[in-house]
Amino acid sequence: MNTGPVKAIRWTGDISGCLELLDQTKLPGEEAWLQIRDPETVRSCIERLAVRGAPAIGIAGAFGLVLGARDLDGTDREAFLRNVEAIAARLGSARPTAVNLTWALSRLVSQIARSESVAAGDLKQILLDEAHRIHKEDEEACRSIGIYGEPLFDDGAGILTHCNAGALATGGTGTALAPIFEAQRQGKRVRVYADETRPLLQGARLTMWELMRAGIDCTLLCDNTAAAAMAEGKIQAVIVGADRIARNGDFANKIGTYGVAVLARAHGIPFYVAAPTSTVDLATPDGTKIPIENREGTEVTRFGGVQTAPPGARVYSPSFDVTPAHYATALITERGIARPVHGDAIGRLMQTGASAGS
Amino acid sequence: MNTGPVKAIRWTGDISGCLELLDQTKLPGEEAWLQIRDPETVRSCIERLAVRGAPAIGIAGAFGLVLGARDLDGTDREAFLRNVEAIAARLGSARPTAVNLTWALSRLVSQIARSESVAAGDLKQILLDEAHRIHKEDEEACRSIGIYGEPLFDDGAGILTHCNAGALATGGTGTALAPIFEAQRQGKRVRVYADETRPLLQGARLTMWELMRAGIDCTLLCDNTAAAAMAEGKIQAVIVGADRIARNGDFANKIGTYGVAVLARAHGIPFYVAAPTSTVDLATPDGTKIPIENREGTEVTRFGGVQTAPPGARVYSPSFDVTPAHYATALITERGIARPVHGDAIGRLMQTGASAGS
Repeated sequence: MNTGPVKAIRWTGDISGCLELLDQTKLPGEEAWLQIRDPETVRSCIERLAVRGAPAIGIAGAFGLVLGARDLDGTDREAFLRNVEAIAARLGSARPTAVNLTWALSRLVSQIARSESVAAGDLKQILLDEAHRIHKEDEEACRSIGIYGEPLFDDGAGILTHCNAGALATGGTGTALAPIFEAQRQGKRVRVYADETRPLLQGARLTMWELMRAGIDCTLLCDNTAAAAMAEGKIQAVIVGADRIARNGDFANKIGTYGVAVLARAHGIPFYVAAPTSTVDLATPDGTKIPIENREGTEVTRFGGVQTAPPGARVYSPSFDVTPAHYATALITERGIARPVHGDAIGRLMQTGASAGS
Repeated sequence: MNTGPVKAIRWTGDISGCLELLDQTKLPGEEAWLQIRDPETVRSCIERLAVRGAPAIGIAGAFGLVLGARDLDGTDREAFLRNVEAIAARLGSARPTAVNLTWALSRLVSQIARSESVAAGDLKQILLDEAHRIHKEDEEACRSIGIYGEPLFDDGAGILTHCNAGALATGGTGTALAPIFEAQRQGKRVRVYADETRPLLQGARLTMWELMRAGIDCTLLCDNTAAAAMAEGKIQAVIVGADRIARNGDFANKIGTYGVAVLARAHGIPFYVAAPTSTVDLATPDGTKIPIENREGTEVTRFGGVQTAPPGARVYSPSFDVTPAHYATALITERGIARPVHGDAIGRLMQTGASAGS
């Protein structure tokens, strides 16, 4: 079957509508949609990973802010602005590492701050329009990343990916998976190897689901099996997404990414990072300054209601790690490719301000 | 609490006794002992990992052969020998990678082949004595490995281990864990980081259980987190066991070991392998010739009754990988240390024939 990439986020109706999210905690067993009408539920969905992936949580956060603003009294413009900022701050604290969340929220806040309108109804509509714009831009960014990234893969290549940076993680076809979907569209055969990605198995649950649904050749492996797959010649390229890219090109991504990068280097395999420029945070000078979320140890010690480690076991469970820029062969964005990845190359990409796909 | 290393294999009684195994599939939730009186059940316990770890399956296999031989008619010495060999072949096929299993079975078979006795009762007793001897020797080998390996760790060191190479995997205190138990005995403080070791979580379930039970400072992490722990300076040494060591020093161990070795090298961290000489297979010239067991994909796609990947997902799930000898800083055996690890050093260790601990 090939049903094309899934859409996991949608806003239905006008300003009185609601946000609908495909509950990613239920996949692959169940395709359950959540209908959300308040910002606190959006925040909780982000926190418990019902929606995850840096671009996707940016989009969901933006619509969450619309939901919060919608119910505000709008008689006083300044009070309205302050309240919107407070809701944005609350939404932005749901997860600390991915910069797209605060980036999207800031875009909405500054859009109404810039507007001269005093009518609350207008301001609310401006927020909704901007959220739709972010969603649409991300969809276009994914398409461009796909087009820029696809030539990097040879026909028949084995491509390793880690975690899920596909349609479920974005407003479009994905970041890391976009070039793979594009390769398929062009009739190129690729073989994807998906790291299962402990502890929450986004690779097994989400990447495999997306790829199988799209009819793409894919094989699941435990994270610890990637090295053997490389040594055996199964892997010709690695591609991953990013949750935050620092000014110098260091980047945070799902825990395990750094290890895959080191392994790729040791095996002479190119290691690509794919992300929209909304993931670049020029205010973060380098990887040491990226805040890393630590998740609950129970994500590691329990699974499916079964205790997998002795009660009381101490756990080290950061949700992300940081990969130094020099491990990345290239950074693929919607504005083009930085190769090699360093501060100057990223600075040039950010200054182009080119529209998606140019 | 410090109750000392656990004993997971025991023979109770005389030749009419039985083999008792601590069912490792039930840990850490339950300490269930299996009482086994026939070789086919021993084989099934090895196959389903109720007993696992290269030295431990050697010992269990040896007692399994005793159980099989015990019920044989012994009126014809040659027929008895042939039947014992057939049972040994059947037991030896339970798992292909660890050489200790066939090594132990061969030792029993050759012991009776060498004996001039024709009384079946005598031959059966010879088999039981030899199984006990293998068990006892492994216990002593663990003690010696502990004594040789302990000085490699500085006080306060962070030590990463992968899978379980502790008391549960051997007849004594373990291979990789033996120097850690010895360090504790000497009052040295070490901090152990235990890779959870997907798919069957021997690190989370077994290593953490052993270490917590012994009161040793230990922290659980997902396999994909080892690289971040190294980059953050948490790890000063890595120590692992082995399932088969080829003549040139290449060795097979639990899947993921090779990746940890590459990561250790990239971070300038010493990487130690600990194994009794019964794990060395001089008949295997190098790692490419070690047979690697592929396990059922369902070990990866299901957990605790929960489906974690889409039905029909293709899985690549080798149970072991091969680490080239040059990645090992040293090989710690009961006969001393090979450093660096190469064919000549291993050859010298094997020729010493020194008694354990010398």
